[in-house]
Amino acid sequence: MTDRRFDVIAIGNAIVDVIADASDDFIAAQSMPKGAMRLIDEAEAKRLYDAMGPAREESGGSAANTVAGLASLGLRTAFIGQLGKDQLGEIFTHDIRSLGVAFDTPPMDGIGATARCLILVTPDAQRTMNTFLGAAQMLGSDAVDEALIADSKILYLEGYLWDPEAPRLAMRKAIAAARSAGTKVAFTLSDSFVVDRHRDDLNALFDAKAVNILFANEAEAMALTGAADFDSAIAAIASRVPTAVITRGEHGAVAVRGDERAAVPAEPIERLVDTTGAGDLFAAGFLSGQALGLGLEASLRLGAIAAAEAIQHYGARPETDLKALASAILGE
Amino acid sequence: MTDRRFDVIAIGNAIVDVIADASDDFIAAQSMPKGAMRLIDEAEAKRLYDAMGPAREESGGSAANTVAGLASLGLRTAFIGQLGKDQLGEIFTHDIRSLGVAFDTPPMDGIGATARCLILVTPDAQRTMNTFLGAAQMLGSDAVDEALIADSKILYLEGYLWDPEAPRLAMRKAIAAARSAGTKVAFTLSDSFVVDRHRDDLNALFDAKAVNILFANEAEAMALTGAADFDSAIAAIASRVPTAVITRGEHGAVAVRGDERAAVPAEPIERLVDTTGAGDLFAAGFLSGQALGLGLEASLRLGAIAAAEAIQHYGARPETDLKALASAILGE
Repeated sequence: MTDRRFDVIAIGNAIVDVIADASDDFIAAQSMPKGAMRLIDEAEAKRLYDAMGPAREESGGSAANTVAGLASLGLRTAFIGQLGKDQLGEIFTHDIRSLGVAFDTPPMDGIGATARCLILVTPDAQRTMNTFLGAAQMLGSDAVDEALIADSKILYLEGYLWDPEAPRLAMRKAIAAARSAGTKVAFTLSDSFVVDRHRDDLNALFDAKAVNILFANEAEAMALTGAADFDSAIAAIASRVPTAVITRGEHGAVAVRGDERAAVPAEPIERLVDTTGAGDLFAAGFLSGQALGLGLEASLRLGAIAAAEAIQHYGARPETDLKALASAILGE
Repeated sequence: MTDRRFDVIAIGNAIVDVIADASDDFIAAQSMPKGAMRLIDEAEAKRLYDAMGPAREESGGSAANTVAGLASLGLRTAFIGQLGKDQLGEIFTHDIRSLGVAFDTPPMDGIGATARCLILVTPDAQRTMNTFLGAAQMLGSDAVDEALIADSKILYLEGYLWDPEAPRLAMRKAIAAARSAGTKVAFTLSDSFVVDRHRDDLNALFDAKAVNILFANEAEAMALTGAADFDSAIAAIASRVPTAVITRGEHGAVAVRGDERAAVPAEPIERLVDTTGAGDLFAAGFLSGQALGLGLEASLRLGAIAAAEAIQHYGARPETDLKALASAILGE
C-alpha cells in the first residue's frame, strides 16, 4: 500500500473553536454536562456566546485536529468536511491547508454558517463543549471522493458526525469505498452521548466488520458495551473490532488486537492547561504508527506523546513539531 | 470629575488579530519591517495569509487592548471603533462587551470587512504586524458621541488611526469635545512610521496644547523629535506636552510632568512569550493610575505590571485579573 497518495484521509466536522475560561459555577448555572459535548442550535449558540467571557478562536473539529496532528508527525493527509461560505470558513481552510493537509471540499452558500464549538475551559483544565453544527451537518455524499479514499491507507471517521443524517450517509458511502479499495477504516466514538443515541446502529456497523480500528475512551467504552466494569468493556469491544484502542486519560491507554494486548502510561507533562484535543491527538499518534507499519505499543506511545503536547496549551491543534517530539520512536 | 460615567473612553481601530508563529527567515523573505506595523490592502492581506502558517484569532486593536486592560483593572471604560457587518465584527463586539466595556458603534454594511491584523511572532517573542484596515478606516465623525466624551475623565486616542483621513477628522472632533468638557486627552504615537508620516501635524497638535498625556516608545520619541539621543528626545517631548510617558521595553519606563520626573524598571517576568500588546497594556496601567488620582511613579508601576502580564502569553488582551495583580498599588 506504500504507493498510495495519502496515509490518512479523514471525514469530520469542519469547526472553528471559540475557547474561553469559565468557572465551575458558570457550567453548573448553564446546566451543561461538564466535560462532554452537546449540540446546540443557532439561538442557543447566540445566547451562550453573549453570556460567556472573552474568547480566542482556533480551527478545530475532532477529526480535523487528528489530521493536523498527523501532518505534524510528517504523514500525508487529506480532510473532507463542510464549511459555510463565510469568514470562519476562510479561517478553517487557511489553517488546515497551511499544515499541508489536502482539503478541497467546496464551501457552500445558503446552508448555514460555518460550525463553531463554544468551548469552556474550567480551572481543572477540563473542556465543556457546545457545538452549533451549522454548515458542517450539511456534508453530503457528493463531497465524498471515492478515488481519494481508494488512494489512502486509512479512512478515519469522526463519531460526532454520526448524529446528523446527511453526513452519516456520506460516511457510509466512504466506508463502502474503503472496503472496495482495501483502505482500512478507523472510527472514533467521540462522545458517550453519541454512543447512547446510536448504540445499535454502531454495533451493527462493527459486527459487519466495517471498522478495522476503533477508538474509545472509558466512558464511551462503557456506554457502547453496557459492561459492568472496564475490563469487561475492553473484552467486549475487542471481540467486535479487529483493533480496539481505549484511552484512559491520566492512566494511559490500552490497545487490543486479537490475542495481542499493549498498554502505555500517560506521557509526563509539565503543566496541564486545557484537555481540548487530547483524544484527537492521541488518535493522530496511534494512526501514524499504524500507517507506518509500527506495532501496537509503539503506536500507543506515539499517541501518548501527541496527546501530552496537546494538553499543555490552549486549543486542540499541535503547537510544536510532533515529528521532533516523537523522533525516538519514528527513528528520524 | 468623580461623578463622570467613564474613567476612560478610547477611540481606535476595531481589529481582530490573527496570530501565527513565523521564522526570522519568513519575515526577511516577505520584506517586512520586523517589530513594526505596516498597512496592507485586501489583496496583500490575502496573499500573506495564504503564505503564513496556522493561526489563532483574538480581538485586538491597540486602544481596544488598552480599554480591555483598564476594564481588568476595575475601571469604567467605553470604546468607539468601526466594524464591518460580519463574523469577525461579531467576535470583536462579543469580546469587548464581555469585559464590561461600553461599545455601541454600529457595525456597517458595504464599507468593507472588519479589520484584521496578521501578527507574526518570531522566536524572540517580537511581533511584526500587517494590518488590513478594512472597515476600521471608515470610522466617521458621526460615531463620535460628544456627550459620552464629556462624561469621561480621559479620552484616549490611538495614533495608528491618525493615518486614514475619516478617523483623523473624527478624532479631531473628539479632541474638541474633550477640551470643551474638561476631559483630559491622552494620545499614543503607536508606531515610528506613523510619526514619520504625520510629524508636523502631530507637533502642531501638541503645540496647540490639545494633548495632556502623550505615550511614546523610544523609537517613536526619536522619530518625533529628531533628537540625537534619548535624553534629548525626552526633554524635547516634555517641553511640548504636560505629561510625557516614554516606554523602554525591558529597560522600564519614564514619565515627565513639568519639573517632576519618575522612572520604573520593567516588572520581572517568568517567561517572555509574545510582546504583542505590551505598549497597549502599559498605557492601560498608567491611565488607570491617572484616572484614580495616583502619582506618576505609582501610575508607571501599574503600567509595568500590566505590560508584564501581557508579554507572558500569546495575544494582547489580559488573561489574568489585573486588579488582583496590582492590588498592592490599588490598595484593595
